[in-house]
Amino acid sequence: MSGVPARRQLKLGAYFTGSAVQGDSWRHPASDIDAAWNVQRYVSYARKLEAACFDALFFYDNVFAAADPATVAQSPQAPRWEPMVLLSALAMATERIGLVGSVSTSYSEPYNVARAFASLDHLSGGRAGWNVVTSTGGGENFNLDAHRDHGARYERAHEFVDVVTGLWDSWADDAFVTDKASGRWANPDKLRVLNHRGQHFQVRGPLNAPRPLQGWPVISQAGASEDGKALAARVGEMLYTAAQDIDEARAFYADVKQRAAALGRGPEQIHILPGVMPVIGRSQAEADDKWGELLQARDADVVLRALSSYASLGIDLTRLALDARVELPDEIPLTNSHQSRQKLLVDWIRKERPTVQQLYTRWSAGGHRMLVGTPQAIADDFEHWFSTGAADGFNVMFSSTPGGLDDFTQLVVPELQRRGLFRRAYEGRTLREHLGLARVPNRHFR
Amino acid sequence: MSGVPARRQLKLGAYFTGSAVQGDSWRHPASDIDAAWNVQRYVSYARKLEAACFDALFFYDNVFAAADPATVAQSPQAPRWEPMVLLSALAMATERIGLVGSVSTSYSEPYNVARAFASLDHLSGGRAGWNVVTSTGGGENFNLDAHRDHGARYERAHEFVDVVTGLWDSWADDAFVTDKASGRWANPDKLRVLNHRGQHFQVRGPLNAPRPLQGWPVISQAGASEDGKALAARVGEMLYTAAQDIDEARAFYADVKQRAAALGRGPEQIHILPGVMPVIGRSQAEADDKWGELLQARDADVVLRALSSYASLGIDLTRLALDARVELPDEIPLTNSHQSRQKLLVDWIRKERPTVQQLYTRWSAGGHRMLVGTPQAIADDFEHWFSTGAADGFNVMFSSTPGGLDDFTQLVVPELQRRGLFRRAYEGRTLREHLGLARVPNRHFR
Repeated sequence: MSGVPARRQLKLGAYFTGSAVQGDSWRHPASDIDAAWNVQRYVSYARKLEAACFDALFFYDNVFAAADPATVAQSPQAPRWEPMVLLSALAMATERIGLVGSVSTSYSEPYNVARAFASLDHLSGGRAGWNVVTSTGGGENFNLDAHRDHGARYERAHEFVDVVTGLWDSWADDAFVTDKASGRWANPDKLRVLNHRGQHFQVRGPLNAPRPLQGWPVISQAGASEDGKALAARVGEMLYTAAQDIDEARAFYADVKQRAAALGRGPEQIHILPGVMPVIGRSQAEADDKWGELLQARDADVVLRALSSYASLGIDLTRLALDARVELPDEIPLTNSHQSRQKLLVDWIRKERPTVQQLYTRWSAGGHRMLVGTPQAIADDFEHWFSTGAADGFNVMFSSTPGGLDDFTQLVVPELQRRGLFRRAYEGRTLREHLGLARVPNRHFR
Repeated sequence: MSGVPARRQLKLGAYFTGSAVQGDSWRHPASDIDAAWNVQRYVSYARKLEAACFDALFFYDNVFAAADPATVAQSPQAPRWEPMVLLSALAMATERIGLVGSVSTSYSEPYNVARAFASLDHLSGGRAGWNVVTSTGGGENFNLDAHRDHGARYERAHEFVDVVTGLWDSWADDAFVTDKASGRWANPDKLRVLNHRGQHFQVRGPLNAPRPLQGWPVISQAGASEDGKALAARVGEMLYTAAQDIDEARAFYADVKQRAAALGRGPEQIHILPGVMPVIGRSQAEADDKWGELLQARDADVVLRALSSYASLGIDLTRLALDARVELPDEIPLTNSHQSRQKLLVDWIRKERPTVQQLYTRWSAGGHRMLVGTPQAIADDFEHWFSTGAADGFNVMFSSTPGGLDDFTQLVVPELQRRGLFRRAYEGRTLREHLGLARVPNRHFR
C-alpha cells in the first residue's frame, strides 16, 4: 500500500436497496426502473462509483415482500436481487470498490454465510464486507408465525457473528501448502476446529473455504437501538446510521466510540457513516427545482403508507389531510421491527409537530437527512460534520439512479477532492485498505 | 430460437468439485492447484467449455470439511467455492453456457435458495440450474449432532423443491408493469401468495424476486438410491448419474423414465447424463501413457481412504496390501450418506473380487466410469451409449484441469461434432433452450 493520505479523509459508501429505487423515486425521469432484473444497470453504477473512488457500495436487504394490493401496486418494495449473487457479479465488473452486502443473522445459517463471504472476498481480491442485520421482518418465510423478537434477534446476532468469524479462522493463512512434489496438500497443524456449542448454534467446523483475503471481510452494521449499538461497539467496523441533525449525530458518534473504547477498540477501528440524500444543483435555485421535481414524481400515499407501517406510529398517515397536523397517541407500542428508526421519527414528530405535508417532505429518504444545495454547500456540510465529531464519512443515498448518482459523482466528489477531503485515487486494493483498517490476524495462528 | 438440430444430439455437462481438482489428480503436472481461490482459473475453464458448446458446467458441493490430520494433509477436500457466488461470477464471464450449482435441501432455507437462483437466472440471461442435493454430511455444522437421516432428507427434499418452485411462481411473468406515468409499479392480480404449511416448512411468500427468466431454473438431481430416483422422476430435468457398465446404465435409464412417465412426464423432459472420466490420447498408446502418468501422480492412501470412508465399506482399505484381495464383510450397514454410491461399489466388489490395486485403479473417478482411449474410441463409446438407451449425454469429469479439459474440448468434441452428435454452435440462449426443455409456465397465470 502506498500513497496513504497525510490527513484523515472522508469515507464514502453508496447505498442501494437492491431494486435500485429508493422507495419513492422510481417515477422520476432520471430513475431506472429495471435495475432489479437488469444487472447491467448495477454494473454501470458500480463502475461510476469506482471511478469516483467510493470506498464501498452497500446493499440493503430484506427477506420478505409485502402482499397487500396497495403496496404491491404502487411501491417498488419487490423485487430485489439476492445480495451475494449480485455482489459477486459486480466483483467481476470492478477492481477496487468495496462490496458490502446485508445478510440476515435471523434467517440464515452461519456456516452458509461464512462460506459465501469467504468466497466473495477471494473472488473480489479482498473487497467484501458483511452488513450484519437482524432484519425488519421475514419470520413468515422461515418457519415462524411471526418475526423473531427484537431482543432475541440481537442475542442471536452476537453469537452468529462469533460463529462466522470463528469459521473464518478455521485455517491459518498459509494452511494450504499444495506441494505437488511431496503430496502435501495442507498442514494439519494450521487447522483449528471451531467446536462451537452455544445458545443458538452448534457448529463444529472447519469451514470448507480458505481464510478470507482480508482475514475477515469488513463487518458493517446499521442498528442504532440499544441492542444495535452494543453489537456495533463490539464488532462493527463500518456503521450505517441515520441522524436528522448534527447534535444527534455527535451524541451517537461519541456514544458508540466510547462503548467501543470500553471494549478495547480504538476510535479509528469504527467508521461511522450517517446516511444522507443530497439533491444537487449548480445553484441553489437549480437544486430547489430538482427537489421540486422529485416531490412531483412521488406518491404521497406510498411514502406515508411506508412511514406508517415500518415505523409503527399507531396511526395511518394516509387517512389524514396533507395540511393536518400529525398527532401521535401518547403511548406508542415499541415496534418489533426497526426500533431505532421508530424512535427517530417519533422524537422528531413530537419535537417539530409537523403537518402531514411537512412530514412527507422531510422524511422522503426513509429517515435519512436530505441536503438540497450546491456542491459547495453540500461539501461544507460534509466537512462540518466530519471535522466536528459527527461523522467519519457518509453513506450516500441517491435521490434517483442514475440521475442523482451522476450529480454526486460529477459535482460533489470533485469538490471534496479539491478540498483534500476525499481521495483522488485508491491508495490500496482491499476494502480494509480503503478504510485504513488492519488485516485481521488469525486468533489461533499469529 | 433458431437452428434447432434435426436429429437428437448429445448433451454435455462438465463436472467440477468446486476446488477444481478431482480428489486425487491434483499432483498431476497438468492440474491447477489454486482454482479454489483464484477465480481466473474457473473463468478460463468456463470460457473454454463455452467455446466447445457444452450445455452446462456443474458444481458438486458439500457443507463440511474433514478435520482428521491424514485427510487434511493429503486430500484436497477443502477448500471449495460457495457455488452461488462462484456461478454468479462465471455468469459475468460467459454468455451461453449453463451454470448448475448444487445447493443442499438439508442445510439451507427454501426462501434463500429460491431467491439466489432467481437472481442467478436473471443475471445470467436464463442459464441457471439447481442441482438438488440432500448432502452426504454436514449436520455437525447446522445445529445437529449428526447428519440428517437419509429417508428424512429425501422427504424434506421433496417439500423443499415444492416450496422453492412455489416461490418462483409468486409473481406472473408480467407482474411488474413499472409504468412511471400512472404510478403503477406492479399488478396485484398477478401475485399469488404461497402460504405453504407443510411437514418441514412453513413459508408464506411471496418471493421478493421477479419470476426467473426460464420460468424455473433447470432442476438437476444426482441421487440414485430409491429415494433419489423417486425425486428425480418427479422433479429432475438433468440427472447426473454414476454407472460402471452399459447394462446398469440402461436399467437406470429405463427405470427413471418409466417412473417419470407414470407421473405424466415425457422421456424428453429428463436428460440422463452418466458421469465419465475420459483419458485421451491421439493413439491408444498415448492414452495409456497418460493414464499411467495420472496413476503415478496419485496417492493410493488418499484414494483408498476416501473410498473406505464415503462408501462405508466396513473395512479400512489403507490397511491392506495393494495385491490383497478385497474381502467385504457379509453384512455392511447401510450408510446414511451416499447410499447409491455405496451400493454401486459393494456390488462391483462382490462381482469382480478385485485386489486393492484393481479397486484403486478402477475407482479413481469416484465411482464414475473411466475411458482411456483415442477421441474416436471415446466418441464410439458415447455414440453407443447414446443410441442404445443408456444415456442422453454425459457429465464429463476431467482427469486433470486444465489438461484433461483441453484434451476433451480439443480432441473429443470435434469428433462428436463431425459425427453430427453434438452442436457446433448454441441454438438458443438459455439452459432450457440448450436442453430442448420448454420454459416453465406459471401454474397460476397462463
